[in-house]
Amino acid sequence: MRQIAFLLIAVAVVVGAVASMVPSSGHAAGEADPIFVTTTPPGYRDWKWISVAHEEGNLHSFAAILGNDVAIKAYRDGMLPFPDGTIIAALHYSHVPSEQNNKVFGQPQSFVPGEPTNIQFMVKDSTKYAATGGWGFGHFKDGKPADAAFMKSCFPCHEKATGSDLVFTHYAP
Amino acid sequence: MRQIAFLLIAVAVVVGAVASMVPSSGHAAGEADPIFVTTTPPGYRDWKWISVAHEEGNLHSFAAILGNDVAIKAYRDGMLPFPDGTIIAALHYSHVPSEQNNKVFGQPQSFVPGEPTNIQFMVKDSTKYAATGGWGFGHFKDGKPADAAFMKSCFPCHEKATGSDLVFTHYAP
Repeated sequence: MRQIAFLLIAVAVVVGAVASMVPSSGHAAGEADPIFVTTTPPGYRDWKWISVAHEEGNLHSFAAILGNDVAIKAYRDGMLPFPDGTIIAALHYSHVPSEQNNKVFGQPQSFVPGEPTNIQFMVKDSTKYAATGGWGFGHFKDGKPADAAFMKSCFPCHEKATGSDLVFTHYAP
Repeated sequence: MRQIAFLLIAVAVVVGAVASMVPSSGHAAGEADPIFVTTTPPGYRDWKWISVAHEEGNLHSFAAILGNDVAIKAYRDGMLPFPDGTIIAALHYSHVPSEQNNKVFGQPQSFVPGEPTNIQFMVKDSTKYAATGGWGFGHFKDGKPADAAFMKSCFPCHEKATGSDLVFTHYAP
């Protein structure tokens, strides 16, 4: 019995050691499976405002992009790449007409945020997220993170923003 | 000499008293000429985010609406009317396509803030701005306030937002 226990511990140690050397199966060493942001950073709704965006196509969305203090300082200083500790939040809403405003203007011209659709985060940690350009990506709907299959679409798209450290949003003056 | 000085002081006191009773010439008492916000409140770019808006018609504009701490607390508490000390800022930009984003998406779908166009403020002071519903209005282009003729268009329009203390913007959750 004592021998079996020892064997099990030895196996566990070896598995652990191998796991720490080879970050994921199916990849060569150094090509880890991406890891994602799975908890919402606290206090993000109080962060300072970076910019807004409006997407049509299949999205019909409004975004407000907010940043923590590290992000805001980096944007204002024009610092690229963004330093570790940067967190950028994109709060998404449907893009809907405002009946209240249109009545006042006398014509359909006014659009405002409708229902919240999702919140996305980019968290800079050049060690933890080395496999995805130093950025951890997060996508939350009703507070719940998206699954890994969905999340794998973030990096290949953001990777194309080569001139701005994978970040699409520019600071609005 | 002493008599002349006394007389001047007496005249000044009387003029002051009359001025405080009759707020402006050409109006009956209580119908003062509107007064406007002519200096930008300090630090507004660091305020918390309330919402966004997109206007078409003749405007083609993006707005980011920010609020000072009094404004944010009132919005979150659902407090109406807004308390004195509330300041709401609307930062306006042109609404322009993002070539960078559209390249990544492979179709024209993405709109971002272009040039800043103006910044507007609503300042709540139910005494100072009693003639315009307790709100002082400000409009700044390149840091310079608009003239009185332009500013007189603010209140008649905002006055129509009767259910929300003359404020069009709702808080985005």
